[in-house]
Amino acid sequence: MASQKTLLVIGGCGNLGRSVISKFKSNWNIASIGLNNNNESNKNIILPQNQSASQYVNEVKQQLKSFSSSYDAIICVAGGWNGGSIKDSNVFETYHRMHSVNVIPSILAAHLSTHFLNKNGLLVLTGAGGIINNPCHDMIGYGLSKVAVHSLASTMAVSKDMPEGSTVITILPKVIDTPQNREAMPDSDFNTWAKPEQISGLLKMWAEGNNLPKTGSFAMLNVQNGSVVPEYI
Amino acid sequence: MASQKTLLVIGGCGNLGRSVISKFKSNWNIASIGLNNNNESNKNIILPQNQSASQYVNEVKQQLKSFSSSYDAIICVAGGWNGGSIKDSNVFETYHRMHSVNVIPSILAAHLSTHFLNKNGLLVLTGAGGIINNPCHDMIGYGLSKVAVHSLASTMAVSKDMPEGSTVITILPKVIDTPQNREAMPDSDFNTWAKPEQISGLLKMWAEGNNLPKTGSFAMLNVQNGSVVPEYI
Repeated sequence: MASQKTLLVIGGCGNLGRSVISKFKSNWNIASIGLNNNNESNKNIILPQNQSASQYVNEVKQQLKSFSSSYDAIICVAGGWNGGSIKDSNVFETYHRMHSVNVIPSILAAHLSTHFLNKNGLLVLTGAGGIINNPCHDMIGYGLSKVAVHSLASTMAVSKDMPEGSTVITILPKVIDTPQNREAMPDSDFNTWAKPEQISGLLKMWAEGNNLPKTGSFAMLNVQNGSVVPEYI
Repeated sequence: MASQKTLLVIGGCGNLGRSVISKFKSNWNIASIGLNNNNESNKNIILPQNQSASQYVNEVKQQLKSFSSSYDAIICVAGGWNGGSIKDSNVFETYHRMHSVNVIPSILAAHLSTHFLNKNGLLVLTGAGGIINNPCHDMIGYGLSKVAVHSLASTMAVSKDMPEGSTVITILPKVIDTPQNREAMPDSDFNTWAKPEQISGLLKMWAEGNNLPKTGSFAMLNVQNGSVVPEYI
């Protein structure tokens, strides 16, 4: 137990979050923050859906502290996607949803990292490969929210509030191979999509200090030969 | 009257908004959206402070339509600044405030442009000169909110939902010479700051079709020889 490292996953109940927890659980202590319980996690913190982040953040910090005084890796894989253009009559609803699921958990991860991440620890944020050098009229809320995540990541990589020797990496998935995406795009070639367990394998390699790119790296997650290959941009 | 052009100002009660309305009122019809009345504006739409944008947007569109079926220029000069780092215990309060005053009015301006801007019309958004190529640890909420505005501007400049021939310009002020900024930074050389009436003079030149930069331009507002000089980046 003393030698076990401690992981915090934000978004531990999503497709990617569940895969991360499954992959790490053999030799890591895990706390999960999410909208539901993840039974494979050692500790679960359920976010109250009727509260804003400013209301629940102190309680989250108390609970994290009671589980572990510090964390070796903080991985934010919360997120979601919605299409829609700026002209749509429901543009604010769509935008608010994207902002809630993509930006707020990332700010939470960054904030918690300044308080709980160990020296030489790892912070991972989840950006979006599809919006790099791509105007995003057809998914305006998603695009704006992910741009904010990318900017946050760049700032955290040079933040004086981050622990010494820490590394900030932003993964930039394109399409992830989830049941929902298969249902939404049934005619696609699923072999060109990154599988959650491939991504979580990559994250575990980095979290264990192996083959880690420099802090501030943005890793486009390409698929080649049935494997996820990061392309640093 | 028939030959008068019509302007919509978002943020018509702020320092810059009041200056824009003063500058344009001699020969433009003006509607102002803001938190208060601007007596120099021909039409005022007051945003209810206890409602979200998704709640008030339809009423705003009804009122705009009743004032004019279309607008020649839509200028968003709403905005605000707060410092604060990601580690601060009140980071979410600060972020939410910056998001409300900087991002939401810009999305409103962009959305309204797709519905009400004339052919060859002008949309102006207000970004931030200080965050260009600058990590913003000391003003994390401000930085994240303005990055979203810049991204929105880039998207709008190539949006198929914008009217034919329209131009999108983003101004990037550094420090604006306002009473509040003089009070906050009393030892600064105020001559190096852009004055609201200089900025609104520039905006009027563009809105009247004179010396307009190409759509998608980002104009850093430098001060030289007591005058604001745009530097396109």
